[in-house]
Amino acid sequence: MRRLETVGVVGGGLVGSGWAIVFARAGRTVRLFDASAEIRAGALAGIRRSLADMQAFGLVGDVEAIARRISVVDSLAEAVAEADYVQESVFERVDVKAAVSREIGAAIRDDAVVGSSSSGIPASAFTADVPRRERFLVAHPVNPPHLVPLVELVPAPWTDGAILPWLRQAMEELGQVPVVVNREIEGFVLNRLQGALLNEAWALYEAGLASAADIDRTVAHGLGLRWSFMGPFETIDLNAPGGVDDYARRLGPLYHAVAQARRDPRPWSDDLVGRVTRERREALPAADLKARSAWRDRRLMALVAHRRGQPDR
Amino acid sequence: MRRLETVGVVGGGLVGSGWAIVFARAGRTVRLFDASAEIRAGALAGIRRSLADMQAFGLVGDVEAIARRISVVDSLAEAVAEADYVQESVFERVDVKAAVSREIGAAIRDDAVVGSSSSGIPASAFTADVPRRERFLVAHPVNPPHLVPLVELVPAPWTDGAILPWLRQAMEELGQVPVVVNREIEGFVLNRLQGALLNEAWALYEAGLASAADIDRTVAHGLGLRWSFMGPFETIDLNAPGGVDDYARRLGPLYHAVAQARRDPRPWSDDLVGRVTRERREALPAADLKARSAWRDRRLMALVAHRRGQPDR
Repeated sequence: MRRLETVGVVGGGLVGSGWAIVFARAGRTVRLFDASAEIRAGALAGIRRSLADMQAFGLVGDVEAIARRISVVDSLAEAVAEADYVQESVFERVDVKAAVSREIGAAIRDDAVVGSSSSGIPASAFTADVPRRERFLVAHPVNPPHLVPLVELVPAPWTDGAILPWLRQAMEELGQVPVVVNREIEGFVLNRLQGALLNEAWALYEAGLASAADIDRTVAHGLGLRWSFMGPFETIDLNAPGGVDDYARRLGPLYHAVAQARRDPRPWSDDLVGRVTRERREALPAADLKARSAWRDRRLMALVAHRRGQPDR
Repeated sequence: MRRLETVGVVGGGLVGSGWAIVFARAGRTVRLFDASAEIRAGALAGIRRSLADMQAFGLVGDVEAIARRISVVDSLAEAVAEADYVQESVFERVDVKAAVSREIGAAIRDDAVVGSSSSGIPASAFTADVPRRERFLVAHPVNPPHLVPLVELVPAPWTDGAILPWLRQAMEELGQVPVVVNREIEGFVLNRLQGALLNEAWALYEAGLASAADIDRTVAHGLGLRWSFMGPFETIDLNAPGGVDDYARRLGPLYHAVAQARRDPRPWSDDLVGRVTRERREALPAADLKARSAWRDRRLMALVAHRRGQPDR
C-alpha cells in the first residue's frame, strides 16, 4: 500500500468535516463529497470557521494553507477514485452505509483502504456484498475528530490483514491515537465503556440515589480528572501501593458486588428519560443547547492545547 | 451549628494529610492526630512538600502561612474536643472505623459533625453503637482531596437532617465540590460509576478484544477528555441535536444490549488479574510505580491549574 497522501472523505457533516481537518492539517490532500448539494455548498465555510477557532487556541497555524488542501467535489467517484484512503462518515444506518459502501467499493483503486466512522455498527453488517470488501474496516472517531484524537480500528472478518498495521501507523502519523479492537463487537470498546458507566448512572438516578446534576459533578470534578490523561487500568495500578493486583485484591469484591446488583438491567424507560430530560432542560433550556455545545468545543480546544504542553512521564 | 472554623483530622496518612491541606488553605484551624507516632512525626513535613509542589503550579500562595494553621497533636481527644467538624480518615475496615468512631463520638462537642473518608463502607456499618451517632456521616473524597475537589456526602439512617445542608454549604466554602448520595449504597455513586466502567474494561480484556494499553488509551485520549469538565448526562445531552431524550431514543437500545450481555458477571479472576498485571508491569516496572504516581500528581496539579482559568459557560 502507498503512503496515506490523498484522501477521499465521503459525508460532509460534522464528523466528515472534522476528518477533513485531521487529514489536511497533517499536509494530506482531501477530496470531500456529500450527497447533499446544500452540505457541499457550506462545508468549506464550516471547516474554515472550525480552523479559525482552533487557531485562536494555538492548535493550528495557517488556516488558509490547511483549507486550500481540501476541495469539495461533485461526485463520490471523483472523491475516492485516486484516494489512498477513504473515510466514510455518512448517516449511521445499515442500509445507508451499505449503499454508500457499494458505490465506494466500485470506484476505489484496488489498493485503497476504506474506514467507516460507524460508532457501533460493525463493518461486516454493511460490507458483505460490497466490491473489494476486503479493503473495508471501521475507523471510529470521537466527535469532533479534529479535537479528540482517539480512533477505534475494527476489522471485519474479511478485512485484509495488512490493513490494520498500515492504518494504525498512518493514523499515528496524522496525530490521532489509534486503538485496535481485535474482533467485531457491538459498540466496540469506547461506546461499551461509555455505556457501562451510563447504564449505572441511569440506574442510580432511577433509584433516587442522586440527582443527574450530582452524578454529572461526580464525574466532572472527580473521576474524569485522572481519566483525561490516564486510562482506568493505569488509574487503579497507581491507586494501591502494590499496583493493579494489590488493588484488585482489595476492591475486586466490591466491584463484583456492583455488577451482581445489575444482573437484571432495565432499559432506559420513557419515564426515566423524561425525568432526566426535565432536569437537564431546567439546567439548560433547549434553546441554549447549541451555545453550550460551542462552549464544550472551546473547553475541548483549551484542554487539547493544555495537554500538548504536558510531559508523558 | 457553628460555622466550620476549627477542624479535627483523625488519621494522618495520604488522605488525612490531603484533607488538612484543604481546610488550612481555606483559612481553617486544623488539629491532626494519627495513632502512629511515626506518622505524626512526619506528617507536617509531608504536608509542606505537597504545598511546595502546589505552589510551583500556582495553586497556593504562602506555604508557611497555610502550614502554620495545622498542628499535629498527641491525642485523639485533643484533635476533636473543640472541633466544629472532624474528618476521619483511618484505615478502611469496619472494626477499625468503629473503634475510632467510638473514641471520636465520646470526645466531640454535641453540635460537632463527623465526616468519614470511607470510600465504600456506609456510616451505619460502623456508627450504630457510637456515642452521638446522629452527628456522623460519610464525606468521601477522591485521592488526593487537595487536588480533586469532589466529596460524596452520604448520611446514615440516623444522621441529623440538619447536617447535610450544613456540610454541603461548608464544603462549597472550602472550594470542594460536594454531591449528596440520598441513601446508603455500597460503593456510593463515584465508585459504582468507576466500577461499572472497570467491570466492562476487564470483561473486554478477558474476551481478548483489546489490550489493557488500548483500553486505557480509549479513555485517556477519547472518553476522558469531555468527562474532565462535563458529566455523562451533560455529555450525551450535547451529543444529539435534540438533547438527552433524542440521544436516548437513538442509542438507548445499543446500551441496553451492552447491559444484557453482562447479565452473568464474572469476578476479576486471579488469572485475569495476573495477565493485566503482567501487561502493566511490562509497561511500568514495579520499581517505577512511585515515580509514576508523582507524575500523576503533577499532571493533576497542572490540570487543576488549567481548569481554574476556564469559563463555566
